[in-house]
Amino acid sequence: MVKLFFWKGKYHNDLNSRDTLITDLNVLADFNPVVPMNFIDTDFLMLGNLHPTVQMDVIKQIPIKPKLVVLDTMNFWMDNTWDVLMEVIAKIDVITINDEEARQLSGEYSLVKAAQKIYEMGPKYVVIKKGEHGALLFNEDNVFFAPALPLEEVFDPTGAGDTFAGGFIGHIAKTGDISFDNMKRAVIFGSNLASFCVEKFGTERMENLTFDEIQKRLLQFKLLTQFDIELG
Amino acid sequence: MVKLFFWKGKYHNDLNSRDTLITDLNVLADFNPVVPMNFIDTDFLMLGNLHPTVQMDVIKQIPIKPKLVVLDTMNFWMDNTWDVLMEVIAKIDVITINDEEARQLSGEYSLVKAAQKIYEMGPKYVVIKKGEHGALLFNEDNVFFAPALPLEEVFDPTGAGDTFAGGFIGHIAKTGDISFDNMKRAVIFGSNLASFCVEKFGTERMENLTFDEIQKRLLQFKLLTQFDIELG
Repeated sequence: MVKLFFWKGKYHNDLNSRDTLITDLNVLADFNPVVPMNFIDTDFLMLGNLHPTVQMDVIKQIPIKPKLVVLDTMNFWMDNTWDVLMEVIAKIDVITINDEEARQLSGEYSLVKAAQKIYEMGPKYVVIKKGEHGALLFNEDNVFFAPALPLEEVFDPTGAGDTFAGGFIGHIAKTGDISFDNMKRAVIFGSNLASFCVEKFGTERMENLTFDEIQKRLLQFKLLTQFDIELG
Repeated sequence: MVKLFFWKGKYHNDLNSRDTLITDLNVLADFNPVVPMNFIDTDFLMLGNLHPTVQMDVIKQIPIKPKLVVLDTMNFWMDNTWDVLMEVIAKIDVITINDEEARQLSGEYSLVKAAQKIYEMGPKYVVIKKGEHGALLFNEDNVFFAPALPLEEVFDPTGAGDTFAGGFIGHIAKTGDISFDNMKRAVIFGSNLASFCVEKFGTERMENLTFDEIQKRLLQFKLLTQFDIELG
């Protein structure tokens, strides 16, 4: 979980938008990952937020297209490596980005319209993360919304997006189910894990997290969002 | 539904925060409402966003405390009439304000902490409206979150807060039920109606709204938020 490229920035008060101060690629400037043989027939591929050339190299090493390929990316790659990023985006099923990045990628302010534009680039599913304002999952005419858990204190938002992505693909891989209903659950699991990530510095909270804590917080997500209204 | 005091301002892109340019009290500067006799035994009192002195006058005209008193207010009254506003807030059960105003009223950035501070001022229920980012309902250790419906286009956010308040108290008054579970439904009804309000200019959309349209949108709110996860 060590950040192999160096990004220094400042998060705004909404824990979502941020100003990038410096990005140094460091060791990842020459990173050429080789997918181990026992991972080559994976059903689920999660491409972490890295140079799109690296992401494309990984895609090319998997001979049979996985059931689901998920891509995480950010504004830095949109600013600097647009063309190769577009080639990668054309090959994946799910993209996870934040709201500012969805607007940058699509040129649309409305997130509904942004998702529609992004479908045309390739992905059938668009996950838009909004920090303390939750996350949206779009697929054709379906939309699902998972709130962030309201917390008394947010210590450090760094890594929340990566944690969200890990929880998302982790749930999909565990269940093997890529239906929209199961992706809804995956978004809730991602939000659940991200809500722990921000409570302490770096990876500290994740290292000491128990299954029981995750289950208790899942109940909190249910209480936070579930209501019972009869349709008349 | 005519705005009897004149507020001119500019909403930001998130349709929530706004810069006030001018506020003129106009005819409401000398407004002394008299509650009609047949409303004096009301069970549910909604105090619209007006001078807190006017709100207090209305409270004093109701001899038997209603089952639920809901207050809407805004930063203008916090800036200019703090003391009398605090007297009103001490007498009500539910306050509806936006997130910036909750922070101003409480001095807390975290909305969880803000709600806790506001409980100490009087209200047992705190509804925090976040524009396109939805609304939170707090009561003691309970929290409920209703998202705003993701819309392709927002034409005019003016009046969305008033519409939300109307939908909220309308549902409570119709059902007579002030349980937390029913307040959750009331928040959903408020969000539902507000999502129509912003689609056209002023009150135009509300004037032509049908019950069937509201029911259809209620289904959209269900699809948007409801998920099914077994707790392990």
